[in-house]
Amino acid sequence: MAKSTFEYVKNFEQDDTLLPNSWIVVRLDGKCFHKFSEDHNFTKPNDARGLKLMNYSAYAVLSEFNDLLMAYGQSDEYSFIFKKNSTLYKRRAAKLLTTINSKFTSSYVFYWNKFFDEEPLKYPPAFDGRIVLYPSEENLIDYMKWRQADVHINNLYNTTFWTLVLQGNLSPAQAEKRLCGTVSADKNEILFKEFNINYNNEPEMFKKGTLLLRKTLSNEALNKSISVIVDVHSDMLKDTFWKEHSNLLTKTK
Amino acid sequence: MAKSTFEYVKNFEQDDTLLPNSWIVVRLDGKCFHKFSEDHNFTKPNDARGLKLMNYSAYAVLSEFNDLLMAYGQSDEYSFIFKKNSTLYKRRAAKLLTTINSKFTSSYVFYWNKFFDEEPLKYPPAFDGRIVLYPSEENLIDYMKWRQADVHINNLYNTTFWTLVLQGNLSPAQAEKRLCGTVSADKNEILFKEFNINYNNEPEMFKKGTLLLRKTLSNEALNKSISVIVDVHSDMLKDTFWKEHSNLLTKTK
Amino acid sequence: MAKSTFEYVKNFEQDDTLLPNSWIVVRLDGKCFHKFSEDHNFTKPNDARGLKLMNYSAYAVLSEFNDLLMAYGQSDEYSFIFKKNSTLYKRRAAKLLTTINSKFTSSYVFYWNKFFDEEPLKYPPAFDGRIVLYPSEENLIDYMKWRQADVHINNLYNTTFWTLVLQGNLSPAQAEKRLCGTVSADKNEILFKEFNINYNNEPEMFKKGTLLLRKTLSNEALNKSISVIVDVHSDMLKDTFWKEHSNLLTKTK
Amino acid sequence: MAKSTFEYVKNFEQDDTLLPNSWIVVRLDGKCFHKFSEDHNFTKPNDARGLKLMNYSAYAVLSEFNDLLMAYGQSDEYSFIFKKNSTLYKRRAAKLLTTINSKFTSSYVFYWNKFFDEEPLKYPPAFDGRIVLYPSEENLIDYMKWRQADVHINNLYNTTFWTLVLQGNLSPAQAEKRLCGTVSADKNEILFKEFNINYNNEPEMFKKGTLLLRKTLSNEALNKSISVIVDVHSDMLKDTFWKEHSNLLTKTK
Repeated sequence: MAKSTFEYVKNFEQDDTLLPNSWIVVRLDGKCFHKFSEDHNFTKPNDARGLKLMNYSAYAVLSEFNDLLMAYGQSDEYSFIFKKNSTLYKRRAAKLLTTINSKFTSSYVFYWNKFFDEEPLKYPPAFDGRIVLYPSEENLIDYMKWRQADVHINNLYNTTFWTLVLQGNLSPAQAEKRLCGTVSADKNEILFKEFNINYNNEPEMFKKGTLLLRKTLSNEALNKSISVIVDVHSDMLKDTFWKEHSNLLTKTK
Repeated sequence: MAKSTFEYVKNFEQDDTLLPNSWIVVRLDGKCFHKFSEDHNFTKPNDARGLKLMNYSAYAVLSEFNDLLMAYGQSDEYSFIFKKNSTLYKRRAAKLLTTINSKFTSSYVFYWNKFFDEEPLKYPPAFDGRIVLYPSEENLIDYMKWRQADVHINNLYNTTFWTLVLQGNLSPAQAEKRLCGTVSADKNEILFKEFNINYNNEPEMFKKGTLLLRKTLSNEALNKSISVIVDVHSDMLKDTFWKEHSNLLTKTK
Repeated sequence: MAKSTFEYVKNFEQDDTLLPNSWIVVRLDGKCFHKFSEDHNFTKPNDARGLKLMNYSAYAVLSEFNDLLMAYGQSDEYSFIFKKNSTLYKRRAAKLLTTINSKFTSSYVFYWNKFFDEEPLKYPPAFDGRIVLYPSEENLIDYMKWRQADVHINNLYNTTFWTLVLQGNLSPAQAEKRLCGTVSADKNEILFKEFNINYNNEPEMFKKGTLLLRKTLSNEALNKSISVIVDVHSDMLKDTFWKEHSNLLTKTK
Repeated sequence: MAKSTFEYVKNFEQDDTLLPNSWIVVRLDGKCFHKFSEDHNFTKPNDARGLKLMNYSAYAVLSEFNDLLMAYGQSDEYSFIFKKNSTLYKRRAAKLLTTINSKFTSSYVFYWNKFFDEEPLKYPPAFDGRIVLYPSEENLIDYMKWRQADVHINNLYNTTFWTLVLQGNLSPAQAEKRLCGTVSADKNEILFKEFNINYNNEPEMFKKGTLLLRKTLSNEALNKSISVIVDVHSDMLKDTFWKEHSNLLTKTK
């Protein structure tokens, strides 16, 4: 029964401490969410309930970990950004990654009914995760732009595709063929000319994804300031955004 | 909007492929489960509902991933053992780790009501996880023994501690003091002489933890064999166990 | 001048401890040795002086590190095999790798004149190195076989190629064309029929590479045993070799 | 003989690509150089021949790898700094580390006689190496300062220690005891009052170490500029140094 005889196996665990002074990004992705969203009758191309549940779960994570500066989500993915000098869990990669992933997953299931009241959860979903380091502010901002450019490209495509299918009565194969080789302007035109849809008027959450960030509000009556988490759907591809939010990345305490 | 301008940031992801031909172990641990179990009125020292929910969640994971040979759980932790030559997700560490962790967490929340029908889940729990490699069968078996020796030591202590508190009316501090410096035999004696409790008669699940393994049953009527997952509470510290279950580790297909 | 102000930069060094209980292989390769061997008038296709200098340098390394079980060299490469449970330098990868590499390089330059007495070293050569782990004896043996199969294939090719060029008066391009698509039997036949060379009679060091291993000799007069390093040119592709040398891999002290 | 049967072992090599956009530092240290310097009658506390050989070997390395911005050496160690965006060897850690280390070692042995003409090299020396990443310019500069603060502290101590031993006729143990607890000012005073030595007048190479850097010289006659490597013994602890040499770190081509 001597525990110590076997305890040597603990030495096989390998150190995974992340490089100091660099931005830690944890990105989660829904596993097989194509099937999951069909099984739960998600609206096409975007399901506001599903996106709001994603946002709410990310909010739960952000509320718990002060070292998270912000989080950005779109579709079935969410990215969490730690401040550069975070020493949470001594910067151990697996610990950071799994804790964020587990808390998010857990919240997604726990709060499901809050958003899908008439659509019961049929089985437990899963999210995988990865952890990436960015050494410079420029790299991190480009990461955020990369994810937002992704949502733009995908959402314009999906919106046009599903409009062609649902309103234009094309089969998915026909819609795919129709869109093959088209650029953004072509898709905007299809939506506008054929379906009288101005893509610019689509909901910002669909077009831009959701950025959760911390804001400090001063309560003059109480003479103190409080920190709150707010959701915005800003255009992070514009450099003006980063100038206006320069404090986002420099928070060190 | 050019996605490609920012796509370079993808190159910052680092390869985390695990060494081939070695056992992959993923171990999950409840985060702050001391508080979580108090908040949800877990019976002390063991809550059968909680342990069964852990087992059921592990069962859900095992059912989904054929490359998992077995899983072993005790208290608020669970270990999952991949076959040595698994190439699931190309052996990428973060992918394996987060997928198992997320599916387990998700199942824990999803199936909560099945086991805690009168005790609603108050908030989403979280599990952290780590991934460890074992190059030899001996190392892996010693890992299993290590975890089971751990449950033995902890459960005998906890059983005696809580009996002293709940039946012996000692304060936690007094119980701790009473047990300080005692060995296994002392604790067995306290339980037997003072409370007429024979530790050997305690439930096997409490004393041994739970091992989930795959068993092949042959159905003669249908002339085919089926694979099922069963739970056992065997003594893995005995080498006879590993001889009798030698096929457990050698499964290669 | 306060050293401590800057000492934090030491924390950026990352732990590179290798997995325990697995074979550590360090393989060195000559950097730009095609050019180096031309610049130093190496005999084609094999230069016995160059190979003996490689062996001698490897011998110097093996003599210094008791945790090395053996070393195997061919052409401009050398592999060093640590015993499975070595804890030299706490199994830190960079430390093991660079120390072996540096000692080998240093010896190569230092002992140059011993083998190339009429051919002065024109400039300092370099070797790069890599470190690989093998979890099982089978994997390690396959590694050794891989390197020896490599020398066989290359040496038969090179011997035929250079015979065609040096004795057959073909240009290198013509020789290359002649050998294109040939298998081993074809090359053996070219050598035998056209040049009366029986490849089997070529020096073993050229055909098999050199294995350095430790042998324990008992000195009956002194009633003690001594360990010596010997060089052999055995056929490691035969399993009988590994049966006869089973103690090679099991040395644990 | 089929090479392909064994080639699977190549898959056990693990990817060690370094994070992009961060400074790569390779630091080499003499192995057992305390003994080595005694065996080769190095002058105490500093041997100009030994330091010049170190510098010359580092110069040989710098000449060969254009991606190296600079190198800094003191005592038996040398640090090499790669430009932030270097893609040499695809940023593979082991390849970069061993190539630098091997070339340096090789040069040290090859050029020995150039500096130690009356002191033959008795045996091949070795250097170990490590590789460290720094994400920001500030971290890198602090690294350089850390190494130079180290040389200052050590050299003042060693100079005083050896003066007490060689001129003051103290035993090493007595000299050590005498210096125990002293600060810089105390050591300066011992040197000045007791031995009439002004530490400030000691050679810069001893006090500051040697920085090798690239300088672009314009040759007006030829109307072109050439790049040369120069050695300086500047005070890198002063921020003015880094302002004056701001182009040192920003070279990108």
